[in-house]
Amino acid sequence: MSTFGNHFRVTTYGESHCLSVGCIVDGVPPGMALTEDDIQPQMTRRRPGQSAITTPRNEKDRVEIQSGTEFGITLGTPIGLKVMNENQRKQDYGNQTMDLYPRPSHADWTYLEKYGVKASSGGGRSSARETIAGRVAAGAIAEKYLREAFGVEIVAFTTSIGNEFLFPPSATHPTCATNPEFLKLIESIDRKAVDSFLPVRAPNQEVSDRMEKLVADFRDRQDSIGGTVTCVIRNCPTGLGEPCFDKLEATLAHAMLSIPATKGFEIGSGFGGCQVPGSIHNDPFIKAPAVPAGQNGLHASVRLPRLTTKTNNSGGIQGGISNGAPIYFTVGFKPPATIGQAQNTTTYDETEGVLEAKGRHDPCVVPRAVPIVESMAALVIIDALLAQKARESARSLLPPLKGVIPVHQTQQ
Amino acid sequence: MSTFGNHFRVTTYGESHCLSVGCIVDGVPPGMALTEDDIQPQMTRRRPGQSAITTPRNEKDRVEIQSGTEFGITLGTPIGLKVMNENQRKQDYGNQTMDLYPRPSHADWTYLEKYGVKASSGGGRSSARETIAGRVAAGAIAEKYLREAFGVEIVAFTTSIGNEFLFPPSATHPTCATNPEFLKLIESIDRKAVDSFLPVRAPNQEVSDRMEKLVADFRDRQDSIGGTVTCVIRNCPTGLGEPCFDKLEATLAHAMLSIPATKGFEIGSGFGGCQVPGSIHNDPFIKAPAVPAGQNGLHASVRLPRLTTKTNNSGGIQGGISNGAPIYFTVGFKPPATIGQAQNTTTYDETEGVLEAKGRHDPCVVPRAVPIVESMAALVIIDALLAQKARESARSLLPPLKGVIPVHQTQQ
Amino acid sequence: MSTFGNHFRVTTYGESHCLSVGCIVDGVPPGMALTEDDIQPQMTRRRPGQSAITTPRNEKDRVEIQSGTEFGITLGTPIGLKVMNENQRKQDYGNQTMDLYPRPSHADWTYLEKYGVKASSGGGRSSARETIAGRVAAGAIAEKYLREAFGVEIVAFTTSIGNEFLFPPSATHPTCATNPEFLKLIESIDRKAVDSFLPVRAPNQEVSDRMEKLVADFRDRQDSIGGTVTCVIRNCPTGLGEPCFDKLEATLAHAMLSIPATKGFEIGSGFGGCQVPGSIHNDPFIKAPAVPAGQNGLHASVRLPRLTTKTNNSGGIQGGISNGAPIYFTVGFKPPATIGQAQNTTTYDETEGVLEAKGRHDPCVVPRAVPIVESMAALVIIDALLAQKARESARSLLPPLKGVIPVHQTQQ
Amino acid sequence: MSTFGNHFRVTTYGESHCLSVGCIVDGVPPGMALTEDDIQPQMTRRRPGQSAITTPRNEKDRVEIQSGTEFGITLGTPIGLKVMNENQRKQDYGNQTMDLYPRPSHADWTYLEKYGVKASSGGGRSSARETIAGRVAAGAIAEKYLREAFGVEIVAFTTSIGNEFLFPPSATHPTCATNPEFLKLIESIDRKAVDSFLPVRAPNQEVSDRMEKLVADFRDRQDSIGGTVTCVIRNCPTGLGEPCFDKLEATLAHAMLSIPATKGFEIGSGFGGCQVPGSIHNDPFIKAPAVPAGQNGLHASVRLPRLTTKTNNSGGIQGGISNGAPIYFTVGFKPPATIGQAQNTTTYDETEGVLEAKGRHDPCVVPRAVPIVESMAALVIIDALLAQKARESARSLLPPLKGVIPVHQTQQ
Repeated sequence: MSTFGNHFRVTTYGESHCLSVGCIVDGVPPGMALTEDDIQPQMTRRRPGQSAITTPRNEKDRVEIQSGTEFGITLGTPIGLKVMNENQRKQDYGNQTMDLYPRPSHADWTYLEKYGVKASSGGGRSSARETIAGRVAAGAIAEKYLREAFGVEIVAFTTSIGNEFLFPPSATHPTCATNPEFLKLIESIDRKAVDSFLPVRAPNQEVSDRMEKLVADFRDRQDSIGGTVTCVIRNCPTGLGEPCFDKLEATLAHAMLSIPATKGFEIGSGFGGCQVPGSIHNDPFIKAPAVPAGQNGLHASVRLPRLTTKTNNSGGIQGGISNGAPIYFTVGFKPPATIGQAQNTTTYDETEGVLEAKGRHDPCVVPRAVPIVESMAALVIIDALLAQKARESARSLLPPLKGVIPVHQTQQ
Repeated sequence: MSTFGNHFRVTTYGESHCLSVGCIVDGVPPGMALTEDDIQPQMTRRRPGQSAITTPRNEKDRVEIQSGTEFGITLGTPIGLKVMNENQRKQDYGNQTMDLYPRPSHADWTYLEKYGVKASSGGGRSSARETIAGRVAAGAIAEKYLREAFGVEIVAFTTSIGNEFLFPPSATHPTCATNPEFLKLIESIDRKAVDSFLPVRAPNQEVSDRMEKLVADFRDRQDSIGGTVTCVIRNCPTGLGEPCFDKLEATLAHAMLSIPATKGFEIGSGFGGCQVPGSIHNDPFIKAPAVPAGQNGLHASVRLPRLTTKTNNSGGIQGGISNGAPIYFTVGFKPPATIGQAQNTTTYDETEGVLEAKGRHDPCVVPRAVPIVESMAALVIIDALLAQKARESARSLLPPLKGVIPVHQTQQ
Repeated sequence: MSTFGNHFRVTTYGESHCLSVGCIVDGVPPGMALTEDDIQPQMTRRRPGQSAITTPRNEKDRVEIQSGTEFGITLGTPIGLKVMNENQRKQDYGNQTMDLYPRPSHADWTYLEKYGVKASSGGGRSSARETIAGRVAAGAIAEKYLREAFGVEIVAFTTSIGNEFLFPPSATHPTCATNPEFLKLIESIDRKAVDSFLPVRAPNQEVSDRMEKLVADFRDRQDSIGGTVTCVIRNCPTGLGEPCFDKLEATLAHAMLSIPATKGFEIGSGFGGCQVPGSIHNDPFIKAPAVPAGQNGLHASVRLPRLTTKTNNSGGIQGGISNGAPIYFTVGFKPPATIGQAQNTTTYDETEGVLEAKGRHDPCVVPRAVPIVESMAALVIIDALLAQKARESARSLLPPLKGVIPVHQTQQ
Repeated sequence: MSTFGNHFRVTTYGESHCLSVGCIVDGVPPGMALTEDDIQPQMTRRRPGQSAITTPRNEKDRVEIQSGTEFGITLGTPIGLKVMNENQRKQDYGNQTMDLYPRPSHADWTYLEKYGVKASSGGGRSSARETIAGRVAAGAIAEKYLREAFGVEIVAFTTSIGNEFLFPPSATHPTCATNPEFLKLIESIDRKAVDSFLPVRAPNQEVSDRMEKLVADFRDRQDSIGGTVTCVIRNCPTGLGEPCFDKLEATLAHAMLSIPATKGFEIGSGFGGCQVPGSIHNDPFIKAPAVPAGQNGLHASVRLPRLTTKTNNSGGIQGGISNGAPIYFTVGFKPPATIGQAQNTTTYDETEGVLEAKGRHDPCVVPRAVPIVESMAALVIIDALLAQKARESARSLLPPLKGVIPVHQTQQ
C-alpha cells in the first residue's frame, strides 16, 4: 500500500504528472513547533538542477501544510502536506514513440501488467517525483521530533559511484566496519560537511573529484552509472526495533529498498562482514561514558545506556534492537534506466524496434538520493521509537516487582 | 510486532526455552489439501544435527496442526501450529557465568534494554528456534499454495562462506547477474540438487569441498564464519508488489533482514550492479515464449505475460513489481556470535572480565539458513500475490472501458 | 488513527478551520470511470442550507481530485481528494467567551486532555466538517464501484426524530423487523424518494410533517433534538464479513459509531429483537428466485445465492457474514451539543459560570446524516467485498478436491 | 481477520471441534506478574453448567500459558494461550439430519457461502467456543494491567431478558442515563455483587427472579429468548480514543458486535437519549474532586482530570475520547438460534423439510455473556490506553512551548 509506519504513519498520493503530490502524516506528537521552514531545506537538497551533472528539470517543490498545525504548533492531528506538480504533461500522451515501447528496466511494463491501465507517465507512481512529499517532507517532520526530543542526528553521504569508492574494500578490510577511518568519519560527519562536497556529496576531495569526472563521462556518453549511499544515525536511543519480524535492520531495509532504483542494503559490517571471523566480528561490551541526566540538553527522563561496545561491526543493532552505538548502513543505487542511447527492445505489441528516449534525466541518482535516504531513516527510527516509548511508558506504571527475577534497574 | 503479512498473515509466539513455539496463519485459502506431512520436510531441512559441521543439539521439531483444517482440507479459518520445546532449560537460570555477562554481538543486552526483564534464555525471541514455526512451518503452507495454484518454485542455496564464493566477483562480472553460468544455474536448480551438496548446500562439488573445509577449520579454532545464501523464485506471476512503500524488493528485504544473523540483502544485480553502466544494465524486452492456457498444468485463468526481458539484471522486479522473469536475491549472514573462545568483555554491572561460552553452537549458520530464506520468500510472494489477485478480481467485474485509454487487452 | 479499511483504505486530514480537508483513498480498482461528478452529488446532499431547519452556513464543498485518475479513468493508484475550507476562522481565536469554556458535551475538553494543545476550533477534528472528504467523498467512490460491479444499492432515511417514529415500536412489533410494511419499504426505497421528503428525509408525508414541526419547535426554543437513521443495502453479495473480530455487523457498527454525534447501532431486529422468541426470530431458509447469470446486467461471473431467508430478522447477516438478503441497520444520533440557550458550566480553569454559544448550528443533524450513513456503509461493504473476492479468487485457482468433504458446488 | 487491537493485539485460532482453541497476545507490557490463576476466574465465569438454565455441556476450559512469561513475570514477548477442546466431535460428521440443513439464523450457510468448504461443526468459528481464548483469556490479561496500573474497574450485568427490564424505559426516562438509580448503581456495582444474582446476573432480586422464571419458561417450551448486558468502566483515564475513525465508542461497538449473537450497541444515553432535548442531554462541567497524586494507590505520574461532568449522558466519552467519567454501554443479544422445536426450512440442496435440532443449547446466552462483554471492553480500553500513553510519552520529551498557544498545564 501507500502507507509507511504504524505509529508515525505516512500515507502518500500522486503520480508524476497529476495535479499535486502529497501525503498525510498521522501520529506526529502534539505541541511541537513546525512550519514549512522546517521541511523545505531537505526538499531543496533533493531538488534537481543543483549542478551540471544533475537533471535540468526545474521544479520549485514548495511544500504547503494543509492541516494539523495552528500558529506553528502541531495539534497532534494528521498533517496534510501538498506539493503542486508544476510540470504536468498529460497532453503529450499518445503521440510519441515512447508510448509504443515500455522503457527497458523502467516500470512502464510492470505497471501495465499490475493495473491494466497505462498512465501517460508510464510508470505511474514509480517516478522519483513520488519521493518528494511522502518521503522527504514527511521525513523532515520526523527528524525535527527526533532531534528535539533525543538529539538524534542522521547524516548520509555518497560512498561509491561506479567503481570509485570512498573506502575501497580490501583484503584487510573486506568491510569498512573494521576500518578506523570510516568509524571516525561516521562519529562526526554532518550535512554541512557533506554538502560542501557537492555535486557528489562524497566527503573526500580527491575521491569526490574522481566521482564527478566519472559521472560527467557517463553523461557525455549518454549512459548512466550507479553507486552507494551510506547513512549514520547517532544518538539513537537503545531498545528500538520490534522482534521478531520488525527488527530495526529489517524495517530499515524495507524503507531503503522502497526508494526507487535501489538494489541492495547492508547493515553494519554488511556483506563484507560475512568474511570476518566471529572472534573479530563480535563487539565486546565496555562501560559507557557517563553523562548526567539533562546535561546533554535533553529531557531529564531520557535515559542513556550504561554499556556500549568497543567495536561496532553490529552497526548499532543487536538482535534486531538498537544498542545505542551509531547505526550505519549502506544502500546501493542502480544506474538510471533512462539513457539517451538508442536501445533495441520490443513494443507493447511484441514488435522489435529501437527506442530513443528523449528528455530530462540524471546520469547518476546517488547524490540526490542522499536526503531521501536520510528521510526514510528518520521515518523508520521515529516509528520504532514511538513503539518503544509506549512500552516503556506502559511498564513504568506497574507496581515494582519483588526481586524474583533480575530486572533493569533504571527502569524499575 | 510478531506479525508478518497483510493478506496471508503469520503471527508467532515462543522463546527459546518456553513450553512451545508456534504461530497462527490467517488467510490460507480454503479448500487446499494440507496435513503435517506438507510442512515437516522443510522443518527437517532446517534441523541441526545434519552433519559434523552443524550443532549436535537434537531437536525433534514435530509440528502439530491445532485448527483450520478438517479431514486434511483447509477450512479458510486460521491455522494454529505448535511445536513443543523439548529442551527447556529454565532451571539453569541464575547459576552461570553467562548470566553475569551479556554475550557480545548477541541479543542479551538489547533485550534487557528493551523489555527491562532478563529472560533465562538471554535473548528471548532472538534465538534461531524462533524461526521454526513462524517462518519455516508457515512458509511451507504458503509454498504449497504457490506451487499448486501457480507452479511457483522457490530454491535457495549457499553462494559463499567466508571468502569462498560460488561465483567470485570479478572485473568482468562485478555482479553474478551478468554471468551466463549463474543465469543458467538459477533457471534449473532444485532442492534435491541443493541437498545433494550437504552439508554446505553450494551446488558445485569443488567449491562445496572448499567451503566444508573452511567451516571445519573455524570449528576447530572455536571460531565462526559467515556467508551468503542466494534464492531464486521461478514462475512468479507478474504484477506482484505494492508501490510505493511495499515494492516487492522492499518486502523481500524486510523479510530477509528479519531472519536472525542477517547483514545484507541484494536484489538482482545488487551492489555489483551499481558498477555496471546503464546501457548494459538495462534489460531489453523480448517476446515471451507462448504457452497455451492450461497446458502448463495450471488453471486456465492463470495468465502468462506476453513480454519478457533478454537479460535479467533487474532480478525479476521492475518499479517494485514482478515482471515474470526469475526473481533472485542474495542474503548475507554474519559469523555466529556464540564462539568457544574466551572473550574480554563487561558484565551487566559494568565490570570487565572474561566470558567463556559453553554449549552448543554452529560455526556457520549458512547451510541451515537455506530453508529459512525459502520460507520467508514464500511468505512475501503469497502476500503480494493475494493482494494483486484481489485487485485483478475486483477489476474484472467492472464494465469494459470505451477505448479512451490504452488498457491491458488480456485484462479487459 | 485517521484510517478506515484494510483493502479499500481511506486516510483523512483536516480540522474545521485549517486550509483544506481531504483524504487519500487507496485500493480503488483500476479501470473505473471516475470524475468529480461522481462524487459531488452526495457531498451536496450533506451540505447545510437545504432548508429553514438546517444551519445557514454556506459552504461550497467542491471536491477536487488530485491524483489517481487520468482522462476520467482510475489508475489503481491512490486517489487524493481535497476540499478547500472557505470559511476559516483562526483569527477569532483568543477573544471569546467560548475560549474560556469547554462546551458541554462537545469535544473541546477531551481534545485538550488528549493532545494537550487547544485548537482554535475547540474540538479539532470532531467537527462535522471532518465528514466531508474522508466519509462522503470517499464513500461516493466506493459506491460507484459497488453499483457498477455488483448492482449494490445503499439507501438511508430518517426513521425517528425525538419521539416521532416512522415505525413506532409496539407490543406486536417491538422491532420493525417483524413489520411487513417496513420490510416492503426497504425492498424498494431509493434516494430520489427519500429526498422528496426533504427537509427531514422520512419517507411518509404525515410523519415527515410532524418531524419537521418538531425540529422547528426545538429550533425556536434554541434547543436541539436527536433521532435515528435507518439504512438498507440491497444486492450485497453473500460471504462478506471476516470472522471472528471483523464480522460485518461489527465493522458496520464501528463505522457508524465513528460518525460524530452517534449514540447507538442496531443490526436487523436490533434491541427490539432481543424481546422476540427464538422460534419467531429465526429466519427459515427458502429457495432463492433464479436469475440467469448476466441477465441482471452484471458480469457473468457474479454468482447469486441459491437460498434466501423467508423472514429477515438477521438483517442480512448471519454469523457475521452477509447472506444475500437486504442488510439493514439503524443508527441513533444525539441532540446537537451546540445550543443557543445559556448553560451553567465551568471554565477550563475550574471557575463556574454561564456559557452562551454563538453562531451557526443545526437543531437536528439527522436529515444531513443520511448521506454520511450511506457513505460509511459503502466503505464497510467495499472493504469486506475486496477481502472476500481475494479469497474466492485465490481459491478458484487450486486444483479441485477429490470429494472427501462436501464443498460448495458453484465454487468448485 | 482474526486479530483485534493495534497496540495490545490478540490473534486467535480454533473452531468448535478442532484440537485446541487459542490465541497470541502481543504487546503485553513487560514486568507484570501473570500466571494462569489471573486468567482462570473469568473463564470459569463464562463456563456453561452454572445452573439449571444454562447448557449442561461440561467443558473444563483450563488455559495454559505457552510463552511470554518466566517465573510468573511477563517478558514483553507474545503470550501464547491454549485451551484444549475436550469434546471434539468430528466423527459425527456426515451422518445426521443436521448435515442436510443449514440451521436457521445460524452461521452454517454463510460459512459455506464464504469459504466454500463445510466444516463438521457447521458454523466453523461462529461457535460460542471461539470466545474462550481470544476474548475471555486475553481480556483477563488486559484487565490485570488496567487494574494494576490505573485502578480501572470493569463490571457488566444483565439489564434485560425478553421484556423484563432492570430499568424499564419510561416517558420520564426514555434512557436510563437520566435515572439517578441507574447512575448510583454503576458507581458501585462489582462482580461479586453481580454473581450473587446468579443464574441471571441482574443485580435486583425481584427482577432477577422474574428473569429466571422467564428463561425457565422458554426452556420448557424448547424456545429461546434474548436480552441485554450493560457494562460500566470506572477509573478510565481521560484522553482515550483515536479520532476520527477509532473513536472510543466506535471501537467499543466494533468489539461488542463481534461477540456472537449480538444485535445492538448503545453508548451512554443511547437510543433513548435521541429523544432527550439537547438542553437536558448536555453534560455541564464541574470541578473534579481532588485526589493527591499517589494517594489512590497508583503511580504518582498517573494524572487525574481537573474537571468532570455533572450529568453523564455522554457515557464517559465526548468527541470519541474518554472524559474520565464512568463509561457505560449496553449490548443486545438475540434469542439463541438453536432451539429444540421443529422448524420448517430448506436443505442445502434447496429441498423443503423439517429440521429438529438435537443436543445442548442455552435458552438464553445473556448471563454467560457478562464476562465476555467485560473482556472485550478490557481489550478496547487497553489498546486505546497504550496508544494514548505513547502520545503523551512522546510529547513529554519535547522542549516546552513558549506560550504562543494555550496548552494543557499539567502536561507541559
